[in-house]
Formats: sequence, structure tokens, C-alpha cells
Amino acid sequence: MKHIFCRIIFTLVLAISPFVILGDEGMWTFDNPPLKHWAEKYGFTPDQAMLDHLRLASLRFNSGGSGSFIGKDGLVLTNHHVARGQIQKLSSSDNDMVSNGFYAASIEEELPCPDLELNQLIGMENVTDRIQAAVAEISDPTEAVKKRRAVIAAIEKESLDATGLRSNVVGLYGGGEYWLYRYRRFTDVRLVFAPDRQAAAFGGELDNFTYPRFCLDVAFLRVYENGKPYRPEHYFTWSENGAEEDELVLLIGNPGSTNRLHTLAQLEYQRDHLYPLRLKYYDLMLDWINEYAAKGDEQARQASGMIHGYENAKKAVTGEYGGLTNPTIMDKKVREEADFRNRVADNRQLAEKYSAIWTDIAGVVEKEIATLNDRYYKQISGTLFNYALTIVRYVEETPKPDSDRYPGYHDSELPSLEFRLFSPAPTYPEMEEFLLSRLLDKAKQALGKKDPFIKAAVDRKSGAKVAQALFKDTRMTDVEYRKELVEGGQEIVAKSKDPMIVLARKLDPLFRDMHEWREENIRSILTPALEKLGRARFEVYGKSKNPDATFTLRISYGPAVSYTQGTTIEPYRTTLFGLYDRAASFNNQLPFNLSPRWVGMDKKLDLSTPINFVCTADIIGGNSGSPMLNTRGELVGVVFDGNIQQLPGRFVYSDEVARAVGVHSAGILEALEKVYKANRVLEEIKASR
Amino acid sequence: MKHIFCRIIFTLVLAISPFVILGDEGMWTFDNPPLKHWAEKYGFTPDQAMLDHLRLASLRFNSGGSGSFIGKDGLVLTNHHVARGQIQKLSSSDNDMVSNGFYAASIEEELPCPDLELNQLIGMENVTDRIQAAVAEISDPTEAVKKRRAVIAAIEKESLDATGLRSNVVGLYGGGEYWLYRYRRFTDVRLVFAPDRQAAAFGGELDNFTYPRFCLDVAFLRVYENGKPYRPEHYFTWSENGAEEDELVLLIGNPGSTNRLHTLAQLEYQRDHLYPLRLKYYDLMLDWINEYAAKGDEQARQASGMIHGYENAKKAVTGEYGGLTNPTIMDKKVREEADFRNRVADNRQLAEKYSAIWTDIAGVVEKEIATLNDRYYKQISGTLFNYALTIVRYVEETPKPDSDRYPGYHDSELPSLEFRLFSPAPTYPEMEEFLLSRLLDKAKQALGKKDPFIKAAVDRKSGAKVAQALFKDTRMTDVEYRKELVEGGQEIVAKSKDPMIVLARKLDPLFRDMHEWREENIRSILTPALEKLGRARFEVYGKSKNPDATFTLRISYGPAVSYTQGTTIEPYRTTLFGLYDRAASFNNQLPFNLSPRWVGMDKKLDLSTPINFVCTADIIGGNSGSPMLNTRGELVGVVFDGNIQQLPGRFVYSDEVARAVGVHSAGILEALEKVYKANRVLEEIKASR
Repeated sequence: MKHIFCRIIFTLVLAISPFVILGDEGMWTFDNPPLKHWAEKYGFTPDQAMLDHLRLASLRFNSGGSGSFIGKDGLVLTNHHVARGQIQKLSSSDNDMVSNGFYAASIEEELPCPDLELNQLIGMENVTDRIQAAVAEISDPTEAVKKRRAVIAAIEKESLDATGLRSNVVGLYGGGEYWLYRYRRFTDVRLVFAPDRQAAAFGGELDNFTYPRFCLDVAFLRVYENGKPYRPEHYFTWSENGAEEDELVLLIGNPGSTNRLHTLAQLEYQRDHLYPLRLKYYDLMLDWINEYAAKGDEQARQASGMIHGYENAKKAVTGEYGGLTNPTIMDKKVREEADFRNRVADNRQLAEKYSAIWTDIAGVVEKEIATLNDRYYKQISGTLFNYALTIVRYVEETPKPDSDRYPGYHDSELPSLEFRLFSPAPTYPEMEEFLLSRLLDKAKQALGKKDPFIKAAVDRKSGAKVAQALFKDTRMTDVEYRKELVEGGQEIVAKSKDPMIVLARKLDPLFRDMHEWREENIRSILTPALEKLGRARFEVYGKSKNPDATFTLRISYGPAVSYTQGTTIEPYRTTLFGLYDRAASFNNQLPFNLSPRWVGMDKKLDLSTPINFVCTADIIGGNSGSPMLNTRGELVGVVFDGNIQQLPGRFVYSDEVARAVGVHSAGILEALEKVYKANRVLEEIKASR
Repeated sequence: MKHIFCRIIFTLVLAISPFVILGDEGMWTFDNPPLKHWAEKYGFTPDQAMLDHLRLASLRFNSGGSGSFIGKDGLVLTNHHVARGQIQKLSSSDNDMVSNGFYAASIEEELPCPDLELNQLIGMENVTDRIQAAVAEISDPTEAVKKRRAVIAAIEKESLDATGLRSNVVGLYGGGEYWLYRYRRFTDVRLVFAPDRQAAAFGGELDNFTYPRFCLDVAFLRVYENGKPYRPEHYFTWSENGAEEDELVLLIGNPGSTNRLHTLAQLEYQRDHLYPLRLKYYDLMLDWINEYAAKGDEQARQASGMIHGYENAKKAVTGEYGGLTNPTIMDKKVREEADFRNRVADNRQLAEKYSAIWTDIAGVVEKEIATLNDRYYKQISGTLFNYALTIVRYVEETPKPDSDRYPGYHDSELPSLEFRLFSPAPTYPEMEEFLLSRLLDKAKQALGKKDPFIKAAVDRKSGAKVAQALFKDTRMTDVEYRKELVEGGQEIVAKSKDPMIVLARKLDPLFRDMHEWREENIRSILTPALEKLGRARFEVYGKSKNPDATFTLRISYGPAVSYTQGTTIEPYRTTLFGLYDRAASFNNQLPFNLSPRWVGMDKKLDLSTPINFVCTADIIGGNSGSPMLNTRGELVGVVFDGNIQQLPGRFVYSDEVARAVGVHSAGILEALEKVYKANRVLEEIKASR
């Protein structure tokens, strides 16, 4: 029998032994996967065909999140919490499918998601030289920033026109490299199966970022094309047994953002200013939204997604903040930056090109601090005002030449923008009005009566009064009216008396001024500084580090291993026994109550089936729903969380106790078969093997 | 449905609300239980008869630990780990009952424990005045210390002669009060049932001090008198359902020692000197004992109890050390002492009597620091040398008048001493020799060649050589030879050529010198200073605090409540589902393997049965095996551990996250019935209701 103490000793010698196989830092781009490292450390040697397969079977959820094709008829696997926004939009006060779950027993019953766009990464092209060449001769920094943006828009438009594919230029390594990514867009996506929320998020907010864990955080969707199930060329086959202990797990998804290459000045800014304000803002929002939810059952239903979102954000940001305030982590950053700066300073050529970077960035940071409040309080919150502002800008921008437009309104960006703007999804004006009234009062207090934004948006009135007037007669809830305005163009929009449109027309110049100010004072310095920082890093260290996350497709990896926590060791996986233990231990009290479907099923389930598991692969928000694969490319699980120790990963990766948490492939099958009797899904999964 | 978030809010408002019902500090003596507080806060109003019943059904394990009568035929419940020493002594290389468990299917099969003494607290008498009067007129401090000890011995002897009961004077509040405790001694105690170690200590050292937990840490013994089962007047009846959430739990046992009333100087000494050395010493011992255990299966069996003991001690001391190095805790101590000293200083009468206490104690502490190494390295380790030294002293001391004897050899102490000295339990000379050889080498290194102890015990030889010579021909393993020497008296012992006896004769004068030095330099100052400190506390604060633990019977209490840990909340109880989860999660690897008896039993057990649970009652080492009772006096469980957060309780009690961990009464029944089929025990428990 293998003795678990070995793992402990194993961990203790980690600092000195180069031979220990644990996880490795890295959210690697598909143009630069760590092939040599994989081969040496894990004996894993995928050929290009396999790498292409891994990439093409993976998907980005444009709303935030990841997923993958898992069947020949376009079946898609993601997390319940990634699909939750769509499930809520498909629900009504009569049928709360977030709470109750959903299963389409026949293909006809699959429900079209109102505004979900999935992206499949078709190709990547390095366009760094073209962009750098375009700005090289421009001496005025603000002009250079504009030029850079115009070139990027032009590249994107050319690509869109040539291929019909969604085309986005991505800055990697802070802009040290620019890549053109081309995506196939899928906008007809239908809901096939979602468990009830209580099974998906067992333990609720308390168990969020917690491990051991017992969540069936999955949802199945299907991609359609021309009204028929899409037949993807690449999809993942299912591993019935999942990952063994210590087995290498590959993880492919779209991590949102990390700050690992940030300078010390940027990190200190975040630690001392940005994070404290964010936490304060989340507390405010949670107070207000909970107050709204307390008004009644329907209000609670409307608010539930937002409450979940803010609670999740608060716990995540608290964990990240813990990293920033951890002396060990910051000391590491201090040493890293000192080494980097010394190497630059010690080389005359490098010093000439790069030594000013750090002071430039520090100067920008000072300006960020001075205007930080603006970013949180100079806004009209809510989906409906956002529609109005988008319409006002759309009709003003789209007639201009592409290169002159406001960011977000380039031709290459319009398909996705229109898809969102014309979404038929339900909106909640009562909730938006309530929240906006609170936010405006708070903004007045934070910014002062004389602030131009406050004068324009609120003036001497109360937030409640302003909000009431805005929401009373607006038709922004009506998709047809939004289309009518966009089609009518500038003239019609200028005449509209819709109070949201009126306010958007009034505030847009202010917002544009703020944007211009940031262009001149922040981006014109920061953008070239970060580009240089990226290039300096290549020159000093080579391309050995992976770029910070950018919500684009990455591959990360690491074995499924247990870890020490508190007094003891946590297992690499949990079982269905543990779900029933936690529920019974808490007398089935919220949020540890079994969902009704699971009550009494302990007699029928094989309780030793694994339900969740961990591995050391590098993840961050945006990775939710990422497929987890063995080295044969079989799906062993789907990531839905990190443990709390993983949150400082925004700044520094560690494989000691930080873990990605996934739903185990075996647990999904057991639940589909015995609890949900979702045979149609089960058969598709099995057919795909 | 009750929402668990209430508990969180509950905890957060604790600091400001006086109405929150949580646990309370206190290991209260039975002469001064917090009746008023119980009545006001919990509506619990036991009469004197009930208090007597609680006291008389409870037991002290003289080897360290607690237990209780739970049946009319003298059935006793304690922990497996409390009974473990006896179980090991009853085992052999052929039948390792620690590993395999034991069940006496008939009364004839019950196994007599070789050297277990249980004590039942029959009565308590305040003897403070008599002791204080005896020393009041003596001006020489060393003389006073001797006189105090002589008076105590006289009181104990009088009581023993008059009642035949074990009689011990206990100093409470540092000696602010002295009480004569009289105990009925039980020395014929037999093993009835013990589970296999893997069930009793599931999760091994890793899960020690951990919660959630899944251990059947129980053992059943039976007290005999005159060869027949003893019929106790008082025993606890069994609660089949155990404690509900939030229910008040009473806990009666013998906490070993706490340092809550220590002065700052004493705490700093422990933090900066004593604890670091203890931890270093434990590491040494663990290295050596593990080295011995690695020699083979039989060696591993011999060593297992000691390994368990040192690992447990190391984890406990590490947790306590965490309390000492926690600034919040030390700040609290600083403020408490400042308040106490200010109140003394502000009152002329108090100041005259007491203001020197703190500097006196600080002076003693300096001397403790200077001689700290002696306490760890000036010893010949092992049971066999301890027998020899006891014999040498016994024959020298017992002829003297009782009041002149060396501590430990007074008439009142002899019955228990003889019981231990003439124990028929097996000894492990090979193991003792191995460990002694290492300790002597280490001692030589720590103390230097010229140290008188080293010169006498080791001189220029190696530890191995000395140890080998000592163990080669010794007959200390033979009970009959030990009896022969004691009965032969001084003359025979003086002539003995047994190498252990020879060394004991040689070293005893050195040990006595060290003792004398401590009498003159430490005890003569510390004893009266601590007595005064105790009296000063009464005069300043009244008798509102309970005394530090003294391995005498106490009652503590607190409700069974969950608590926050890490990211989430831990339930007030665990279930058998959790046992199977943890085993399956770890692929049944050591130390999380199911014991063979439990494999496959998941189909037959009611897995929702609670197995462990927590409450806020105040405990410390020595409380192991304490009965946990509801307010009707029914047994709801048996304490076997504290969580890691509970360890700083040596210095400061807290009910926020510190918890006592018990085996749940319902889980014990389920296991006895279905896993162990221990019907005889089950029937006795049920008959007792």
C-alpha cells in the first residue's frame, strides 16, 4: 500500500529537488507550447495534428468562460455557472430553470439561448512587425496610440472581409507581440441539459473557492448551423474513468487576465488603491442588490445571478488581495524586478532603449490613482442605459471611415456588438432602477455636487427621482425599438425623446472627454511602455515566459495531486459519499441541502464515484468550463473553480497548494444516468468514444 | 429551512452582542461550578444531587486521561488512545491488538490490564488555612518550601489512614487555595472492547487535531472488585440520538495543565526558550524512534505507541507555540497583566503585600533559562532505568519519617507507586537501549564532556557502549527481581550488581543535588510567589475565574455549534458518509485506508449516522475520554481531540473557532451493532437507559 506520507516529504523537499514532478506555470499560447518541457518532464510529445485538434475542439464563451465540443452533433460541455446567464434569460417567474434545472428529452425541446456567442480559434498570425512599423515614425504619443488602434482596426477589417471570420488583434506580453486571431462564430446555441442550481453549486457562496467540494457544475449546450446541429470536425471523446492520481492533465481555455508581468509600481497601485476600492464597491453593490432581493420571490429570482456574481467577485478579489498583501509574494516581485532592471542597466544598449520604462509606468500610475473614483462612480449602471449609449454611439460612429471610429465600433467588431444589442433576452427594469438610484446617490457623495458628471446626470435631484424618470417611459426594453433607432440612423436618434436616449446623448460627450483624457495621459504613455517592457523581457530572458492572460485560448497543464491544507492533506478527488456527508452533517440546511432530485438517491448511486478533483494546472477566471484532458486527448473533467490558495495566482503561480478544481468525468456520467436520467446526452457522450 | 448564513452573521456580531449563546471559558472545580451563569445563560439549574452524580460517574485514568462509568456492572467508556498503552501491553508480536482490535465475547474473556489505575473523586476538603498557617512563621524560604511539603504529606497520610482512600492535596490558583481530594482507587480493570486502530484513529497523524473527522476513538473497559464486576452507584445513561445542533453539552474530565494564569515573564520564557527546545527535542526523539521502527515489523509494533505519542505531542506543542507567537494573544496577556498590576499598585494595602510578585517570578525565570538544557539532557531514558532509580530511592526513603522523605515516596503515594513498579507489563529493552544510546551521545554534545552528569553517566565512552553495558545483564525486566530488591531493603540493593541499579546508585546523588538546587533557587521563591499571585487575584477580581488545570476533575460546557474555517463553515457533526468519502478519495491509501472490518459495510450501515461532533467546551490534554453529556446527564459522546484552533487554549480560551471534538453516541452504537457485532456491550449500554 502506498503511504501518503510520501507526498508530504515530497512537498517538503520540493525547494531543493529538481526532479519532483509537480505542476508548472503557464497559460501557453498555441503558437508556443512548451514542447521541450513536456517531453523532458512528462514524456508527452503531441504532434501538430494533436495540438490543432486540442485547439479546434475548444471554445470561448464570448460572455466570459470556456467550453468544448464533446460530440459529433455539436454537443458542448461547459459549467452551469458559465451557462447560467442564458438559463436565467430562458427562465421566467413561472419557471425558474436556474433553480429547477432543464433537460430537453428530445432534440425539438432544446432551447435557443437568446444572446450567446461561442468562438472557435481557427488561426493565428503574428502581426507585430506591421503594427510596430506603422507607429515607428510617429513622435506624438497620443497620435501614435490612435495610429496603433487604427492599424489594428484595419488588420481586423481586412481579415474579416477576406475570411468572414471574427478577427481580433491580441496584444501579448503587454504588446511585445501582436497576433491576429481568427474565430469561427457560433450564435445559434441551444440549451440541452442543466442540473438544478443546488446540485451545480452545492454549498453556495460558502463553499465557493473551497476544496474538498461536491458540485455538478456542468451544462450541456448544442451548436446549430442553419437550424441543424453543427457537425464539428474536432470534438473531445470522453474518459469514463477520469484522471488517476498523479496523472498529467491538460487544460484548454480562455483565462481572462493575469498581472504577473506587471511592474512593482502597478502592483503597489493595485494593493494600495484599486483593490481596496473594488472591495468597497462590491460591498455597496451587495448591500443594494440584497435589499432588492428581499422585496419578494420574483425580485429574488431576478437578483440571484447578480448576487452570485458579486459574491464570487468579492471572494475572488479578497483572495487576490491576500496575495498582494502577502510579504512573501511581494518580496519575490521586488527581487524579480530588481534582477530585471539590473540586467537592463548593466547593458548599455538595453539601458538606452529600456531604462526609462519603469519611471514612465510609475508616472502613469500616479494619474490612475488621481482618477480612480471616476471609474467606479461615473457611470449609469444597467443593461438598458448601456443599450441607449450603444445606439447613440453606433449611429454616430458607423458612418465614419473605419480607422476614425471610437473603440468598439470598428467593422470587425460590429457583428458581435449587434448580436448583443439586439438580444431578445428579458431585462429587469425594476431592479435596474433600484440599483441606479442607490448608485447615483453614492456617486454624488463620492464625487461632490460640482463634478460635471454629477451636474449632468443628477444635479440637485435625488438618485431615486432621476432613476424613476429614466425608467418610467423608456422603450429600451423593446428589441424592435432598438432596431428601429439603429436603422433610423443619426437623425432619428437625435429626435428620440426616450429618456434613456436623451440622457445618453447628454452624457456621451462627457464620457468621450474622459476617454480622450485617458488617451492623452495614460494610454499614450502606458501602451508603448508596456510594449517596450515586453520586448525588454524577450531580450533579457528570451521567450521562456508565457504572456499574461488576455481572454484568448491557452493551454495549461499539471498533474492531479493532493496537497496539504491546515492540519492535514486534501485528496486529489472527492466522491459522492462526501456530498451526502456534507448535507447530512448540516442537517440538510441551506446552502448544504441536497437538491430534491438527489434526496434518497444514495441507495441507487455508486457513492464511491468521484465527483470533483484537482490538478496543478495554471488557471484564472475565464477558464471556467475549460475541458480537462488526459495526454490521449480524452476528456477527464471540466474546470469550474480554483481553491482559495489559487487566487494569488493572478500575481504569482505556485503549485504547492494552489489547485484548479474540476468536475470529474465519471461523476458526470453517474449523475446523468441515475439522477437525471438524461439518456439522450448520455448516449451522445458514449457514442463519441 | 434554517439558513446557515445566520451562523456567520451570528459569529460576526459576537464582539458586540451580550446575548449570543456560545461557549464559555472554564474548567470548573466541583466546589465552585458556575451555577448562576448556567441558570442565566442556559436555564440549566442542576441540584447538588445531580452535581454529585456527574462527579461520581466520572473517572480519572492515572496514566493520563479520563473516562466514565456507563453501566451498572462497572462498564467504563474512554478513548482508544487513552486505553492504548494497556492494549499494547496486552499484545504480543503474535497478536497486535492495537492494530487488530479486541472484543471479549464473554465476560470470561475480558483481559486484566497490567497496570491501569482509575480514580473516582469521592470528596474534596479545603485545607488552605492549615497549610498557610504551618508556613506562616518560617522565614527561611527553602525551609518554608520543605515545611509546606511536609504538612501536605501529613494531611495526605492522615486522610489515607483514616479513610483508606487515595488522598492528594491539590494546589489550585497557583496555591491560592489547597484542597484535599480523596479518591477511590480501582486497579482491577479489564479490557472489554477496543476497535482496530485504523477505525479509532482514521487519518492517523495527518488528521490529528483536524476537523471534520471520522474516528471511532473509543474503548470499553470494566472495573472489577474482588474479582467480580464492580457495581457503581453512579453511572451515565446513554443518549441514542446524541446532541442536537446548538444543544448545551457538559464535559467532565481531568484536564492536565493550562497556563492561563501565568505571568508575562513566564509566558515569554515559554515562547522564547521552553517551546523551541521542546520542539527540537521531539524532532530528535522522532528521528531516533522512527529509525528503530524501520528495523522490522516487531520493532515497528513496539515503537508505534511512542511514535504516536511524540507525533501527537509535537503537533500539540506546535499549535500551542502558535498561540504564544500570536501577537493578538500576547497583546491580550500584556493588557491583562497591566490591568492586574495597576489595580494592585493603586491600592496601598495590596501593593505592600503583592507588588513584588512579578519581579520575584521574573527572577526565577532567569534561573529556569540558565538550567533548561539540564531538564532534557540530564536523564537516563526508559522504563527500566526508571524502575532501578525508584528501587534505589524506595529503600532509602521509606525507612525515614514520612515528613522527611523525598517527594513521591510519602506513605500516601506508595500504593500507586508500587502498582506501577510491580507492573507485569512487557518492556522493550532493545528499543530502550537504542534510544538511550542516541540520547547519551546527544547529551554529551549539548552539555559538554566536563558536565558532572556526563562524566558520571558516559565519561569517554560512546552512548552505544554505555547503553549496551547497561542492558546486557540487567534484570529490571523481571517483576520478581524488582520485588525481591524492594523487599530486601537498603542492604540488598546496595550489594546488587545489576548494572541499572549500579548506575542508579551512582547518579542518584547527582539528581538529588539538582533537586536541592531547584528547591533553593526556584521553588522557594516560585511557590510562595504563585500562592500570593492566586490570593492577589481573589482580592482584586474575586473568585470569578476558574483555576488553571491540575489533572483533577473539572466540569466544562458549551453548545454543539459549527464554525468558520478557511473559506467555509464546518458542520457541528460528521457522518459515516464522510468516512467512506475520505477513504475513497484517497484510493484507500494509508493513513486513509478503511480498516478491513469496515470495507463493504457501507451497504449495511446507515451512513447518515453521526460519527464525530464538536462543541465549545473548554478542554486540554488529559480530557481525552471525558464523557460529554446533555443537561439531563445522558451521555451524548466522548471527547477525543480538539481542533488545531483549540491548541492556544493552553494560554487563552476562545469559543470563536476552537472546538472540542467527540465521538458521537449514535455513531458508537451503529458501529458496535453492525461492524463489530459487539452485542454484549450493546446490550449493557441499552440496559443502562
